[in-house]
Amino acid sequence: MAKEITSRSENYSQWYQDIVKKAGLADNSAVRGCMVIKPTGFAIWEKMKAQLDQMFKETGHVNAYFPLFIPKSFLSKEADHVEGFAKECAVVTHHRLMNNPDGKGVVVDPSARLEEELIVRPTSETIIWNTYKDWIQSYRDLPLLINQWANVVRWEMRTRPFLRTAEFLWQEGHTAHATKEEALEEARLIHEVYARFAEDYMAMPVIKGAKTESERFAGADETYTIEALMQDGKALQAGTSHFLGQNFARAFDVKYLNNENREEYVWATSWGVSTRLVGGLIMTHSDDDGLVLPPKLAPTQVVIVPIPKPDPEIMEHADKIAASLKEKGISVKVDRDAQKRPGFKFAQYEMEGVPVRLGIGKRDLEKGLVEIARRDTKDKTSVNINGCVDFIEKLLTEIQENLLAKAKKYRTEHTTSVDNFEDFKTVLEEKGGFIEAHWDGTADTEDKIKELTKATIRCIPNEAKEEPGKCILTGKPSARRVLFAKAY
Amino acid sequence: MAKEITSRSENYSQWYQDIVKKAGLADNSAVRGCMVIKPTGFAIWEKMKAQLDQMFKETGHVNAYFPLFIPKSFLSKEADHVEGFAKECAVVTHHRLMNNPDGKGVVVDPSARLEEELIVRPTSETIIWNTYKDWIQSYRDLPLLINQWANVVRWEMRTRPFLRTAEFLWQEGHTAHATKEEALEEARLIHEVYARFAEDYMAMPVIKGAKTESERFAGADETYTIEALMQDGKALQAGTSHFLGQNFARAFDVKYLNNENREEYVWATSWGVSTRLVGGLIMTHSDDDGLVLPPKLAPTQVVIVPIPKPDPEIMEHADKIAASLKEKGISVKVDRDAQKRPGFKFAQYEMEGVPVRLGIGKRDLEKGLVEIARRDTKDKTSVNINGCVDFIEKLLTEIQENLLAKAKKYRTEHTTSVDNFEDFKTVLEEKGGFIEAHWDGTADTEDKIKELTKATIRCIPNEAKEEPGKCILTGKPSARRVLFAKAY
Repeated sequence: MAKEITSRSENYSQWYQDIVKKAGLADNSAVRGCMVIKPTGFAIWEKMKAQLDQMFKETGHVNAYFPLFIPKSFLSKEADHVEGFAKECAVVTHHRLMNNPDGKGVVVDPSARLEEELIVRPTSETIIWNTYKDWIQSYRDLPLLINQWANVVRWEMRTRPFLRTAEFLWQEGHTAHATKEEALEEARLIHEVYARFAEDYMAMPVIKGAKTESERFAGADETYTIEALMQDGKALQAGTSHFLGQNFARAFDVKYLNNENREEYVWATSWGVSTRLVGGLIMTHSDDDGLVLPPKLAPTQVVIVPIPKPDPEIMEHADKIAASLKEKGISVKVDRDAQKRPGFKFAQYEMEGVPVRLGIGKRDLEKGLVEIARRDTKDKTSVNINGCVDFIEKLLTEIQENLLAKAKKYRTEHTTSVDNFEDFKTVLEEKGGFIEAHWDGTADTEDKIKELTKATIRCIPNEAKEEPGKCILTGKPSARRVLFAKAY
Repeated sequence: MAKEITSRSENYSQWYQDIVKKAGLADNSAVRGCMVIKPTGFAIWEKMKAQLDQMFKETGHVNAYFPLFIPKSFLSKEADHVEGFAKECAVVTHHRLMNNPDGKGVVVDPSARLEEELIVRPTSETIIWNTYKDWIQSYRDLPLLINQWANVVRWEMRTRPFLRTAEFLWQEGHTAHATKEEALEEARLIHEVYARFAEDYMAMPVIKGAKTESERFAGADETYTIEALMQDGKALQAGTSHFLGQNFARAFDVKYLNNENREEYVWATSWGVSTRLVGGLIMTHSDDDGLVLPPKLAPTQVVIVPIPKPDPEIMEHADKIAASLKEKGISVKVDRDAQKRPGFKFAQYEMEGVPVRLGIGKRDLEKGLVEIARRDTKDKTSVNINGCVDFIEKLLTEIQENLLAKAKKYRTEHTTSVDNFEDFKTVLEEKGGFIEAHWDGTADTEDKIKELTKATIRCIPNEAKEEPGKCILTGKPSARRVLFAKAY
């Protein structure tokens, strides 16, 4: 059966790679660090995208598209930004190839050197704010609430499918506002949208909070993040929303006339989630038998398997049930293969993470029954064929809720409060997970802890209550606990 | 009013640029040849994309995603392909920037030179067939019916928004088949899908046909095309579907074991349409007052304008009508602006191509009437407010049909049969449009005609009837007329 997967306890990282491969989600490509997203993996991303896009539109955003390339000089206009982004990226220097004069193949045409190099966008603040300069003159042009679905490239040294790849797909929102308050409100609104999406659709609980200054986006005055906990006790930063102040407006000279006819710099936000979410989804729910998907994001929600093989009577029932499921908006696949054994198919669909499997066999059918198996708990039930569609509809909701509850339980069990550095190190090494601890608020201490333990401050949680204490490293006073973890 | 637009008769090319700009569809960018697709322009592309995506899925295709970059050596593996594509493209040579040691800004880090240059994909046959090699072993792995929505880059010298840009958005289907017949059938199926989309959604009539050998895609054994006629009498190639034979399978060594356990090369197709379609849509229907959009692709189908200004009673009616329209799946905008005059707004919405405008004024309201104006003919009608939603629903269908009929009429009037080269030149210069003429079937003659007149053979129409004749240039025998035109 599905035993080609390494177990989580044996090697978590290999387990992840195995699932990505065996469930047909992604492949390596011939280009270093770039993956091929296979149809099943892409279908998950498409579902995420459709839902997020709807949520963005419901909150007043529109989509647009900006160029893939950024003139090199743009990157250095915002001082912090260039430090954070400009270094590891794909640089286009020429615009033509020519036949190799010395033999086979093609070579770069040296006469086609660009006057100014172009960078493949690692993120689009610079090219977008250079454009906004032309779009914004007065307060009447504001707010601009624009999102883009795009590919970006960051030349990462160590890559892993979905979690960290040189090219990845994402959305990047870039909004422009007349006031600081409005921009802050926007950044927080999107922060909420991300958290809602993670919990309600991905069934992935997240901690909402603000990044410390050292962990902020390069060019941001404030970064809000949602942090999820994976099954190996490591945190995954799943989505960030940045309040950019007037930094990019100053860098690209974007001013507007306010309603008193005075010129002011425009306030900005940017925010993004990426195909990394697919990695988070895999790691949050899957088990040693393969992928587990929350029904709301499963490309195929139900598979109907004839037992032992398709025959006309069984297939008639299967098609009828499939039609009724489709009418309810449930995506369903009817397995028509006549070669493979049911046991093999069951393992395959478990591997692929189909939330519900419906088996139809001759003997059950005589009693008016079908067998329904759920992927999350592996429980099986015999159900009357006439009520099976309603049963499945309810079951999908139940699976969605169960996955969230299970992930929350895991997180609760793997969130520990510690009060001194020894305990901090012990918990980090032996148990992992989120650690709530006091920190003196300085970047120095943060760096030191990272250096000593590899743990970082994931965020200052929104819901952290006022609680005076002492920094675990320096003993200096602290007003509230922050959230530490090792992270992806 | 909308009189900032150059008229078509004065300067067709400027008229097009004016519409793109004034209707807010696209902007130039800081990167040569790359455009910014603005929200309204992008919303049109999104509607096209959603519809095409549905049609692809209904015909059994799935989406996936392949890398942006192609190793340089891949391009020269298929001999014809490299001649057609490898030359004008964006070449990535380095993967890092560094602070300028001599001063401000950043420069390319010379130590970060790539071992092999990467090309930003101009099309993805090579990287995809390199991947298919791993995915295809036996006939059971076939067919592979995969599509990708992506950005591509071709370093064009002369660019125009949507029609020809260095970077553009498109879909590219890449399918793999066990037999020649199946691959040919696939290429023809997609050809039909493209034609149906053009006529049923874009209201843009197209001629379906095959390309001559010289006009085929680089690496194809057969290219099917849909050709539309623009209002300046020039043709626009709107979508192509290629039968690639075994060319890419041979180049990338992709073989499968057939059901007799014999190794064979795989058969291939590829097919694509791009944001160029937005350009075709604009040029097919628009007039001297601005954009005209077929309702099925209009981001906003109906706008409701209070006359002269929004007041509570009027807005209550407006909101009620808007809600009823939305229930029917009709997209509607309620204009709430209290500053601008109705006349100004009318001109603006005409410019933006909103298919139906509904005006609500106090005086009309007392009689239970509203005013409905259609963008295509500019006709206005007073309609009873209670029946206005049904009226609009029918009107949208009528506009969609009228635009197609009008475009067909234009094409019929601008399609001329000629029997000698003098007439050919005269018609081409004085009337333009499609010319049906005899051709001796040789590439030499085709080239000569192109050289002398700039007209190309757009296609050998599927529906060209057998009709013996003499080539207009050489007088040699010909079995049927082919379709000539000057083209974009």
